Amino acid sequence: MRRFIALTALLSPSSALAVPTPGSVPSPAEIVAKAPASAWRDVAPDHLLVMKLADGDRVVIELAPDFAPVHVANIMRLAKAHQWNGGAITRVQDNYVVQWRVHDEAASLPKGFVMHPPAEYERPLAGLDYRALGYPDAYAPQAGFAGGWAVGRDKNLVWPAQCYGTVGVGRDMPPDTGDGRELYVVNGEAPRQLDRNLAVVGRVLEGMEHLGALTRGTGDLGFYTDVRQTIPIASITLASDMAQTVRPVYQVMRIDTPSFTAYLDARAARRDPFFVHPAGGVSLCNVPLPAREVKQQGR
Amino acid sequence: MRRFIALTALLSPSSALAVPTPGSVPSPAEIVAKAPASAWRDVAPDHLLVMKLADGDRVVIELAPDFAPVHVANIMRLAKAHQWNGGAITRVQDNYVVQWRVHDEAASLPKGFVMHPPAEYERPLAGLDYRALGYPDAYAPQAGFAGGWAVGRDKNLVWPAQCYGTVGVGRDMPPDTGDGRELYVVNGEAPRQLDRNLAVVGRVLEGMEHLGALTRGTGDLGFYTDVRQTIPIASITLASDMAQTVRPVYQVMRIDTPSFTAYLDARAARRDPFFVHPAGGVSLCNVPLPAREVKQQGR
Repeated sequence: MRRFIALTALLSPSSALAVPTPGSVPSPAEIVAKAPASAWRDVAPDHLLVMKLADGDRVVIELAPDFAPVHVANIMRLAKAHQWNGGAITRVQDNYVVQWRVHDEAASLPKGFVMHPPAEYERPLAGLDYRALGYPDAYAPQAGFAGGWAVGRDKNLVWPAQCYGTVGVGRDMPPDTGDGRELYVVNGEAPRQLDRNLAVVGRVLEGMEHLGALTRGTGDLGFYTDVRQTIPIASITLASDMAQTVRPVYQVMRIDTPSFTAYLDARAARRDPFFVHPAGGVSLCNVPLPAREVKQQGR
Repeated sequence: MRRFIALTALLSPSSALAVPTPGSVPSPAEIVAKAPASAWRDVAPDHLLVMKLADGDRVVIELAPDFAPVHVANIMRLAKAHQWNGGAITRVQDNYVVQWRVHDEAASLPKGFVMHPPAEYERPLAGLDYRALGYPDAYAPQAGFAGGWAVGRDKNLVWPAQCYGTVGVGRDMPPDTGDGRELYVVNGEAPRQLDRNLAVVGRVLEGMEHLGALTRGTGDLGFYTDVRQTIPIASITLASDMAQTVRPVYQVMRIDTPSFTAYLDARAARRDPFFVHPAGGVSLCNVPLPAREVKQQGR
């Protein structure tokens, strides 16, 4: 006997789908699986960061240059200069964040690296497409999606929400002390009190199941107390710097499509047969933007 | 250089606290640490479930008899009959749930066990103390705390919210197919679409960092595909059935106290020095009810 509870939205169509009951309303996962090619946008290989852990696990991150351009440019420079290679995950705090750093924080910085980036915590909405979530939010006057990212909004300002899988820049107390050499990813309940307090530079599209399962650190703030506990990073590379035959290729669902409309609606009012009481609403971080890896021919 | 990001509310005063900046406003963790004895209520040892994994890790769960009395009674009967001992965690789905089951689902059931409990998904507010969260919620007309639990509310009905660490009863499609022999705990972003769709029977007070770090299953719905991957459970015992000298003793913060008022307010408007932009609001599942283990003298 294998009792189960309902399937969450799948982030990849390669995962198994629940078998639909004949005549039932499609689940979020089914809507994603059936979305036409026009519902997807390509992620630029320049904005796709591929982390390889020393044990072989792969994590793929979409960068957010529209929201934190200076921080993202720093991270891209560090990748091109191979400064992440030999770095390590040094902190895993349960229900909060996983944090990692470059190999040597005393190393000379790559040309063009900005030591004290501005506090890129919010930006004007102008220039981004926008869709409202349509349900109340405890953290912002309005919640929605802008430029393909889940955001809080206040009048004409937007900022990325700190959801499960969101990647941001660690810093000390003063806001200009984070430069991109230490990054974190959210590994639990969305800590949205961090919205507009840290620079969001990306989100995990693949491999969050590896980062989520790391042993928690027992030191203050979840830092590992012994260097032997840290998780070595083999490399972090931009997809554009990898050979075309081996680089991952990703697409993210466009927010201005009927597929996304249907997906958002299905996330808010679950009509798949398991649910006896659809909520009729959904929180911002419970609408992960669907992403899929595109397998190239001949690979 | 160890850049960091702000400390989340601590669930146990034995964890390290951030050092307060002189003159600064107390953080949620500091408020919890300073709460007087009168701010706490004891958890009855009858309603404290102690899970020991085979590797020695301990998980302590507070049961929720006020919300799912028939399911909780079943779980207590299974514990008294030792039917969890030799059970296993069979499913770990990233950003969703960890699920476990009794040793032998074909074993004779303990006396009094209810095969088809009612769908205990909501209950009348009457008889429980209540405090509103005070911020908007996407899933319920009102969010708050009732009888010491985070709840959604619609007029005179309340139901426990499915937050990180919430323990519930797995079931098949029909609502009356879960009896308590398979339980799950939420290990990611609160899947509140499950509110009022599954019976909530408890929450993890200690040891979530062990369950959160389990290797994700690669089968459908995160089930392990090979029995050798499953995580063996040594025992699940009621604290009241353990010798007084070894049983854990827990307290949870009362919601009708000035300490909880201050804690809730500080969670919503972070004034500790790290924050440059306090949100001014907080989501229900981001206000974990403070709990603490009480160390008994002479142990």
